[in-house]
Amino acid sequence: MNFKTYFPILDWGSRYNRQTFTSDLVAALIVTIMLIPQSLAYALLAGLPPEVGLYASILPLIAYAIFGTSSALAVGPVAVVSLMTATAVGRMAAEGTADYASAAIILALLSGAMLTLMGVLRLGFIANFLSHPVISGFITASGIIIATSQVGGLLGISTEGHALPGLLSSIIDNIGTINVYTVAIGALALGLLLWIRLDLKNWLARFGVPASIATVIVRAGPVLVVFLTMALAVLLDLGSKGVALVGDVPQGLPLLSLPSFSLDTIQQLLVPALIISVVGFVESISVAQTLAAKRRERISPNQELIGLGASNIAAGLGGGYPVTGGFARSVVNFDAGAATPAAGAFTAIGIAIATLLLTPFLAVLPKATLAATIVLAVLTLVDFSVLKRAWNYSKADFAAVAITLAGTLLLGVEVGIALGVGASILIFLYRSSKPHAAVVGQVPGTEHFRNVKRHQVETVPGILSIRIDESLYFANARYLEDLVTNLAAENPDLKDVVLMCSAVNFIDMSALESLEAVEHRLKDLGIRLHLSEVKGPVMDRLGETDFLRNLSGSTHLSQHQAIEAIRSARSAAGHDPDQKVHIQAVQQ
Amino acid sequence: MNFKTYFPILDWGSRYNRQTFTSDLVAALIVTIMLIPQSLAYALLAGLPPEVGLYASILPLIAYAIFGTSSALAVGPVAVVSLMTATAVGRMAAEGTADYASAAIILALLSGAMLTLMGVLRLGFIANFLSHPVISGFITASGIIIATSQVGGLLGISTEGHALPGLLSSIIDNIGTINVYTVAIGALALGLLLWIRLDLKNWLARFGVPASIATVIVRAGPVLVVFLTMALAVLLDLGSKGVALVGDVPQGLPLLSLPSFSLDTIQQLLVPALIISVVGFVESISVAQTLAAKRRERISPNQELIGLGASNIAAGLGGGYPVTGGFARSVVNFDAGAATPAAGAFTAIGIAIATLLLTPFLAVLPKATLAATIVLAVLTLVDFSVLKRAWNYSKADFAAVAITLAGTLLLGVEVGIALGVGASILIFLYRSSKPHAAVVGQVPGTEHFRNVKRHQVETVPGILSIRIDESLYFANARYLEDLVTNLAAENPDLKDVVLMCSAVNFIDMSALESLEAVEHRLKDLGIRLHLSEVKGPVMDRLGETDFLRNLSGSTHLSQHQAIEAIRSARSAAGHDPDQKVHIQAVQQ
Repeated sequence: MNFKTYFPILDWGSRYNRQTFTSDLVAALIVTIMLIPQSLAYALLAGLPPEVGLYASILPLIAYAIFGTSSALAVGPVAVVSLMTATAVGRMAAEGTADYASAAIILALLSGAMLTLMGVLRLGFIANFLSHPVISGFITASGIIIATSQVGGLLGISTEGHALPGLLSSIIDNIGTINVYTVAIGALALGLLLWIRLDLKNWLARFGVPASIATVIVRAGPVLVVFLTMALAVLLDLGSKGVALVGDVPQGLPLLSLPSFSLDTIQQLLVPALIISVVGFVESISVAQTLAAKRRERISPNQELIGLGASNIAAGLGGGYPVTGGFARSVVNFDAGAATPAAGAFTAIGIAIATLLLTPFLAVLPKATLAATIVLAVLTLVDFSVLKRAWNYSKADFAAVAITLAGTLLLGVEVGIALGVGASILIFLYRSSKPHAAVVGQVPGTEHFRNVKRHQVETVPGILSIRIDESLYFANARYLEDLVTNLAAENPDLKDVVLMCSAVNFIDMSALESLEAVEHRLKDLGIRLHLSEVKGPVMDRLGETDFLRNLSGSTHLSQHQAIEAIRSARSAAGHDPDQKVHIQAVQQ
Repeated sequence: MNFKTYFPILDWGSRYNRQTFTSDLVAALIVTIMLIPQSLAYALLAGLPPEVGLYASILPLIAYAIFGTSSALAVGPVAVVSLMTATAVGRMAAEGTADYASAAIILALLSGAMLTLMGVLRLGFIANFLSHPVISGFITASGIIIATSQVGGLLGISTEGHALPGLLSSIIDNIGTINVYTVAIGALALGLLLWIRLDLKNWLARFGVPASIATVIVRAGPVLVVFLTMALAVLLDLGSKGVALVGDVPQGLPLLSLPSFSLDTIQQLLVPALIISVVGFVESISVAQTLAAKRRERISPNQELIGLGASNIAAGLGGGYPVTGGFARSVVNFDAGAATPAAGAFTAIGIAIATLLLTPFLAVLPKATLAATIVLAVLTLVDFSVLKRAWNYSKADFAAVAITLAGTLLLGVEVGIALGVGASILIFLYRSSKPHAAVVGQVPGTEHFRNVKRHQVETVPGILSIRIDESLYFANARYLEDLVTNLAAENPDLKDVVLMCSAVNFIDMSALESLEAVEHRLKDLGIRLHLSEVKGPVMDRLGETDFLRNLSGSTHLSQHQAIEAIRSARSAAGHDPDQKVHIQAVQQ
């Protein structure tokens, strides 16, 4: 094996120079500033202490820098995976307990192991079964759930549940215990963050601040809000007024460690780990590919699996929780000019320093600030337009989106995505089980054959030409049997049937047996079966079968050759070869 | 709605005449003689008293004659469905108990209701998901299990279980309790039946017996064996020598009745009823279609569902158990000249008379005789050649057969078929998730485009033509993204990409979004995306989308037109249009 495929760092590392170093450093600085509040907030969303978010933003980034192939992907805690972690771990232990924290670590280790395995076994294609409609519906629903889950933090009331019904009812139940100070801090943070995102840049521009600097300030905005609200908490002694603060957190960096765990715990976390792995991978790979394409770079999906796998194992060893490539963060990293995965490593160092400096002060950070950060971050996830687009494009895809959306909102992330995947697979199977097929005739004066229902074409009496617009497999094999059998039953003076296979990409064994059945039935009626325009790979396979050996008719390179061959054979047999019937197209 | 579609009898009944009457009567007589021992035996296989087999051969045939569309299909108890009944009902009650019998009746009613519903809702396509490999593997495995389950009856020992391991171990456990008289009777019956099937016809021919009469005698053979062994049982007083006899059975015909049942019973039987319905339908429809085709007749799959549904409801009301169209019996019915479904009704009358005459004597019928009848009947089901054929044709199909075969033998009919269906769906999804696609070039001097790896073709520098040989949907959408993105990354001087869609039968929303992603990425690189040979239905759908509106390139009727258009556009832009590069085919 080639080391460079498994350790991309050996590849780009050998071409590393001062220039790439500088641009990586700049990007890392900006991403670090952006990542600090997010990592704290997402940890809270996952039901973990804020510092865990910082931990999950150190080692995983180093691991990805070694094994990852994308120069711009920024790995770390993300909203959706944090919610899924809370859902999975919440079933097994109460928030704040040691079991809860260690379950999150085990989840990261499991997901890391699965991703690595999928990468080594080249199983990246598994991710393909998360269709776009399912992902869109899932992300939107998750965004709504996450935002709702933070209402409690903004109002100073306690909520529970990881699906909409539970959350809403717990909000309503506790609405009486609102804390005005918390609401004030939450509103302030929310307002400031919103203003920073929407107006700050123009506002600075009015004061002649150059755009480049303005951008940096905007990115730093959320951190400033964090410091501001911390200051307020101290000055106004908000803690004593019932505002929930983060509280004391352990100093310094976590040591590499493995939690104690039981086989039972692992069994319970297997399925959630798998779902988190696939969802995280899909989210990550799509942003990585989009950014890579902009620079004509290539990323290897299977190596990405290994990269994310390593990151999650690192997250587990470093006292974190499941991570993946974040969308917003990666785009910032890209815009800031990250040139190699090293940018991620530098970000890790930045976060490590921040952790050392910040942890003493986190005690006085109001949770409402983090709630506000989350709400603002996930609002970008919510996008109902997909419903409309799906409706316009295809009702089937709309059904998939709607099922995933409703399922996730009402029953939670895991059931929701399972329903979505199941629905989209069934829809696809149903669709391909009723293949499009057309009786075709010759367009006068050409060698082209077209649907007799759509075009004015000529057909030869006694010859039936059927074009099949689908690969033939078990789900549509019987359909073909019915179609040909019924058409044959309708045409008593039929002598030859030609199957035009230009759009048949493979024929599985069920379809082969159906073709044999068709062949036998036609033979019983004294009708020959011919094939035309069979693709190379399909013909290679058919060549070895009795079906082709015993075929009553023959196979032809093109539909036109087939018709000509049959007609000349007939004239040889004394029939009139030239009789053609003009068919008026029956529009329908 | 048209009454004749739901009551086919109104159609053929109006054309009924003396001639069809005669041929129906003859066929009915032969089928009746054949059906008597089989119905007794299959009931025993289902763990029910033999007379229940007779009951299941009366009303269901009348019901099918009214609602069925096949003139030759002979409905009644069949081996595989009997085994499935035993499996399902055996979980809920002990053989011989009243609960067991009523559970079988409820199973028939449920399956009848499901089949009717599927027919009314036009859900016949559900049956398509039982692929040929799965059915073959399932039938063979069932045959083996059934034959093994009868060993006990032939040796006079008791066995239990509906999968191979349980059966074998119970045979080994009880091997000590063999009853020699039972073995003798069993061997005699088996030998006679075998001789009748293999030699009797020739033997009679030697005595100048005309073939037609010989055939009837051969068909009557099994009944004669029944009477012979009954006579022996009486003469030698086998009952007192430990030979298991059928024992007293209620006189006369059953009254229409409904068993008392609990919701719980129904819930437990829902899944088995569904599986029995689908398996029964598939078995029945395939033989019905094969026979119908021989006479250029048409059968309506959805009406067949209603016909079988009515039969099973009738079976439930008439004290029977699940029924379906039997293969061997239907062929006999067809050969004997059954002209309309009335033949089935006449058979029912024949069985009713037989029931009245036989039931007094059944008491002395050795069960070993029935066991022998079953063994001989199911040996025709066992066919391992499918394994070889599947192996030669496609390893994927082989996997489906092997999984179903092993699963059914080891884990029973229900788990086995579920595994098989799951496996074949996964195999299909995997196959279509890695679609065949080829970079194509122009065959010199023609308008044809072929795979550059298989043929010697010309390509125009800066133009990349990719032919996609698969419908585009979520499972392969990302594959397309990777393919085009990577090819683009490899060709720095690329200006135009043409997707040749001649084999693309539909594009689902995921694929559409992938195409948009491809379009954006290419645009970022200053590359235009073109489409060629897009099918009508696909184009209709794409027409309404932003993708087509914003397409950087254009769409062309044929690949050739696409290339010409691009080249002329270039020459207009001052490039040299005529440079072509000859590509030596790289065989691989």
